[in-house]
Amino acid sequence: MTTDDQQFASDNYAGICPEALAAMTAANAGSATAYGDDGWTERAADAFRRLFDSPCEVFFVFNGTAANSLALASLCQSYHSVICSASAHVETDECGAPEFFSNGSKLLVAPSADGKLTPAAIRSLATSRSDIHFPKPRVVTITQPTETGQVYTIEEIRAIAAVCRDLGLKLHMDGARFAQACATLECAPADITWRAGVDVLCFGGTKNGMAVGEAIVFFDTALAQDFDYRCKQAGQLASKMRFLSAPWVGLLESGAWLDNARHANACAERLATRIADVPGVDLMFPVQANAVFLTAPAPVLDTLRARGWRFYTFIGGGARFMFAWDAQPERVDALAAAIAEAAATIPIAA
Amino acid sequence: MTTDDQQFASDNYAGICPEALAAMTAANAGSATAYGDDGWTERAADAFRRLFDSPCEVFFVFNGTAANSLALASLCQSYHSVICSASAHVETDECGAPEFFSNGSKLLVAPSADGKLTPAAIRSLATSRSDIHFPKPRVVTITQPTETGQVYTIEEIRAIAAVCRDLGLKLHMDGARFAQACATLECAPADITWRAGVDVLCFGGTKNGMAVGEAIVFFDTALAQDFDYRCKQAGQLASKMRFLSAPWVGLLESGAWLDNARHANACAERLATRIADVPGVDLMFPVQANAVFLTAPAPVLDTLRARGWRFYTFIGGGARFMFAWDAQPERVDALAAAIAEAAATIPIAA
Amino acid sequence: MTTDDQQFASDNYAGICPEALAAMTAANAGSATAYGDDGWTERAADAFRRLFDSPCEVFFVFNGTAANSLALASLCQSYHSVICSASAHVETDECGAPEFFSNGSKLLVAPSADGKLTPAAIRSLATSRSDIHFPKPRVVTITQPTETGQVYTIEEIRAIAAVCRDLGLKLHMDGARFAQACATLECAPADITWRAGVDVLCFGGTKNGMAVGEAIVFFDTALAQDFDYRCKQAGQLASKMRFLSAPWVGLLESGAWLDNARHANACAERLATRIADVPGVDLMFPVQANAVFLTAPAPVLDTLRARGWRFYTFIGGGARFMFAWDAQPERVDALAAAIAEAAATIPIAA
Amino acid sequence: MTTDDQQFASDNYAGICPEALAAMTAANAGSATAYGDDGWTERAADAFRRLFDSPCEVFFVFNGTAANSLALASLCQSYHSVICSASAHVETDECGAPEFFSNGSKLLVAPSADGKLTPAAIRSLATSRSDIHFPKPRVVTITQPTETGQVYTIEEIRAIAAVCRDLGLKLHMDGARFAQACATLECAPADITWRAGVDVLCFGGTKNGMAVGEAIVFFDTALAQDFDYRCKQAGQLASKMRFLSAPWVGLLESGAWLDNARHANACAERLATRIADVPGVDLMFPVQANAVFLTAPAPVLDTLRARGWRFYTFIGGGARFMFAWDAQPERVDALAAAIAEAAATIPIAA
Repeated sequence: MTTDDQQFASDNYAGICPEALAAMTAANAGSATAYGDDGWTERAADAFRRLFDSPCEVFFVFNGTAANSLALASLCQSYHSVICSASAHVETDECGAPEFFSNGSKLLVAPSADGKLTPAAIRSLATSRSDIHFPKPRVVTITQPTETGQVYTIEEIRAIAAVCRDLGLKLHMDGARFAQACATLECAPADITWRAGVDVLCFGGTKNGMAVGEAIVFFDTALAQDFDYRCKQAGQLASKMRFLSAPWVGLLESGAWLDNARHANACAERLATRIADVPGVDLMFPVQANAVFLTAPAPVLDTLRARGWRFYTFIGGGARFMFAWDAQPERVDALAAAIAEAAATIPIAA
Repeated sequence: MTTDDQQFASDNYAGICPEALAAMTAANAGSATAYGDDGWTERAADAFRRLFDSPCEVFFVFNGTAANSLALASLCQSYHSVICSASAHVETDECGAPEFFSNGSKLLVAPSADGKLTPAAIRSLATSRSDIHFPKPRVVTITQPTETGQVYTIEEIRAIAAVCRDLGLKLHMDGARFAQACATLECAPADITWRAGVDVLCFGGTKNGMAVGEAIVFFDTALAQDFDYRCKQAGQLASKMRFLSAPWVGLLESGAWLDNARHANACAERLATRIADVPGVDLMFPVQANAVFLTAPAPVLDTLRARGWRFYTFIGGGARFMFAWDAQPERVDALAAAIAEAAATIPIAA
Repeated sequence: MTTDDQQFASDNYAGICPEALAAMTAANAGSATAYGDDGWTERAADAFRRLFDSPCEVFFVFNGTAANSLALASLCQSYHSVICSASAHVETDECGAPEFFSNGSKLLVAPSADGKLTPAAIRSLATSRSDIHFPKPRVVTITQPTETGQVYTIEEIRAIAAVCRDLGLKLHMDGARFAQACATLECAPADITWRAGVDVLCFGGTKNGMAVGEAIVFFDTALAQDFDYRCKQAGQLASKMRFLSAPWVGLLESGAWLDNARHANACAERLATRIADVPGVDLMFPVQANAVFLTAPAPVLDTLRARGWRFYTFIGGGARFMFAWDAQPERVDALAAAIAEAAATIPIAA
Repeated sequence: MTTDDQQFASDNYAGICPEALAAMTAANAGSATAYGDDGWTERAADAFRRLFDSPCEVFFVFNGTAANSLALASLCQSYHSVICSASAHVETDECGAPEFFSNGSKLLVAPSADGKLTPAAIRSLATSRSDIHFPKPRVVTITQPTETGQVYTIEEIRAIAAVCRDLGLKLHMDGARFAQACATLECAPADITWRAGVDVLCFGGTKNGMAVGEAIVFFDTALAQDFDYRCKQAGQLASKMRFLSAPWVGLLESGAWLDNARHANACAERLATRIADVPGVDLMFPVQANAVFLTAPAPVLDTLRARGWRFYTFIGGGARFMFAWDAQPERVDALAAAIAEAAATIPIAA
């Protein structure tokens, strides 16, 4: 079994947070009707409706790949296309799941320095072709925060939604770390979703402290028609649904969903602050969520790894440190010190 | 929240058994590498290999629909067909999931009084057509025990496997309640799987006391090639995999997987024994696993329902009572008494 | 190269009729814009609109399997189901194409003595399940005439359409031999399609004298939205479209579509009449289109085959003789004589 | 009906060449067994085997989109990926057909100035990721000649095949204009296919003078297993197959397939030669097949269009002139003169 306190590779290496675990344990008392016709599931859906101040339709599925793919499939026919950023998780890390669930919808990819889509990029991709020899654009998907830890502002989302409406496109939000965005913006969840023009949100539970599970939230409830059938056919209907839904009750009713995110964000900010003056080590992106992307000389990264620190690296010297709900501030400080120490031993090229 | 002690509708209304829960809790200590590259997952796979006395390949997915569909999809191309019984879960209760995951493989359905496939039925379906206008038979799937609670004997499975080999077909076993079959037959798990000629088994965890999760066991490991990609693309790769795999460690290493099944089977047998002499109430099938199927006059069933008992009913007066790992013998007795009482008040048609 | 005048196995063994060939030849003069943006295609679509007295949308695809499957896919999502007769071509002879094009829609099959669906059978299948564990009924497909050569009356179609409307189902007609049904009923094509409640028709060209090609006719034009994209993606958009559409101009403008069908039907009737009194040889179905299904002692059929006659046979002694646009009446007579002669030499079992 | 002699937009605007038409007409005599079990189809397949000096397996389908997509689907599972050039027809002009037929295989796109893939680009794409979160590379597809009219040399194809073998990838060739490449290279068809390491070829018939139809040629015949089922299920099995196969007999046995290509290539070369010295008008690519890509000032192109000439244009001032089997040299000369005249009236920017 792998455990360690030098681990900052991913926020899905963390376990279950206390509030989610307590709810699972409570849900385990006695029997409950299967397939979502139980009290915990109703209570979780209601908690979402209160959180979003919206009569939204909510579905609970097992993981983020399925959540995104099923949501996109419900918005697309096979001959449609989905506009996304080049760094979007649906493009880079879901092994063709969107194409599989939709039976062939193509992803149209916009290059992006910071992982964000822009209204101009959307318009350009959506209007570049209008003949039947190329898939018809139908959906825009944005990740909030992006895979590089950038947070779309309310205004940016509104602007994207406006171009979507103008072009007849639906707007989907991949919110694998949606809570972190809310923590950063200190806004109501509604402000960056339905009030800004988002049609469907995939709200991540796993990276927010759950064992397993994501929520798909349809603000445009007409789009949710028969979505329960779609989930069932695609192997995403839990029989003991209460164990997917109860943790959401634990997270949402206690406020832990936001506390967890704030804590993770604060740890990222803490690291960024502590290494701000380390020579040769630079931020690749502003720190807006729970990740810190650094550039550092390869020997610095090698040294860190040799001393047991774990993180993701990228071609060209980039490193990603990701902070979960259970990141320990003192370990963040230890990491910062280790980075500084490693950098100090490496002569910086003039 | 729905809980009650008169509930015998389904074995997936039960919660998590202590051994599975303890393992989940233990697994929750600290962090662990995601996507199955963790110690719990390795340990669970090893436990399966010991259980089956086989160097099998093991994959953990979220539910039975996905397990069956992915296994079948790995054995089929879209133009192939799958031979199954008319009462097979893949045919009747998975909303077209096998067709969806395989992109169109057709199920060829054999009528069956007791839910079992026979070598003759397989041969008949597999050889009825051999032209390219009809899907080419490629896989046979059997459910052990069947949806009606019947258990294939070792000899029956061997005979089916022989006809499969003769016809060039692969043999898949839907073992949503595989443990119950092992408990009934008092055989080694290997005896009704690879030693008898089964290529792939879907071993049910949910109905055996887990919160969520099934195992796909490839005895013919060549068939497992790239199956990890298939799971990932189909939204069946858990990021925090340890929470899918650790419960298996809890179930398998403790022997709870078999104890749970024996207990459930015993409860079914207990009910059958206690109502054996109730006039007008008859078994629809021999009790060989953890379900009791009864025929009874409609007023008897109405009375039971009115008094709070919960069970499934079928057209024509059938009722299914299903017993989980946590069924309480005294409640089974109370159910038996309630059936007898209800029957006593109903005049039996001459 | 196989050619012969004893061939009555299938109406797709025939070649191209003169009117279709003349139009293809005429269309071959000079160049034409590809992908349907040409004059012949417009003219063919207009001919359909006149024929049906309807502002229908018309698409030209390569074969009947694709026509039916694309039409059904446009009406279904993958988790929907399609209600059909057990003898429907989509069920028995398209190798799982409907399931493939729709990415998993299940066919729900009604047993049928004569190949026809009835309102009662539709209602029964459509209402047998209403839970998400089973595909949701969405479309009814009927074949006109049926695969056994039976023709739905106007009233029968209206009755089926009424139950469809009542249950929220769409109505698709597989008209691989639609012309033959029109010839039999002596009705306007509109009377057995949109006026009776049919939403989409697949109108067969190949069996009506074309080299290749079927037309998909959407009477409910809202259902045709983006159907051109669907055809393109599915490999059913001809680049030199004029060669698919011009033959329709030839058939429809000349009336050959109906003359061909009348001729084929008359040949079937001719055979039926001439063998009416042959002992031991009986019609399996009334002759209502261009096929004759006979039961005859096996030695009779063996004798016919030995003498060079070609036809389809079925388990249990059935034989199908099918007549194309180019069937020669004198050869039909010769066939009738051969049947009588063969039967005369076989002692009939008392 | 659109016809004109100023049309150079596409080689699929042309009609049927005499040799193909004569064969179709000959095939129309009498009846023939359906679905490819006829003499013309056997004769066409044999002609391919002679042409390629190979016991290859040959299948006839309706169009190029289907040919490419079915071939790729037969080489891929849904979680695999296909490496292609950014300008590949499968990527840019088939509306997601490869993704649809394969149920989700992703295209990995290499940027390319001239439309060609290189061994280095293939290696880079194939090795950039090796984790299960990204589709597993399985096939390389090259277009010969490319969509920009460039012809891979024998050595280039061998080098690509070598890297494919090294990486465990299959090699597919989109030969929509394969004949033109053979004409350019003056090589045996085998030299740029199986002898160079190509596994599967899609050989274009439509652009070579047929009405409809492409051939899929499996040099590695093990890959052709069950391909007939795949074609049937995907709506690509012609019932009157002789009309798809006979034109190939006409083209191959007469040598017209190569004569047509040589003529088309010569027309392209003719135009290129005649405009070589026109100021302001430049070739975008060397002319190696039957297309000429030009850059010219927008007013020049506007003038040409205004005078009735038809061609494709691209963003940034590019124009494509494509020559078919029936292009008339005097009209090519007229086009060249028109270009020169238009250019002469436009002042060239200093």
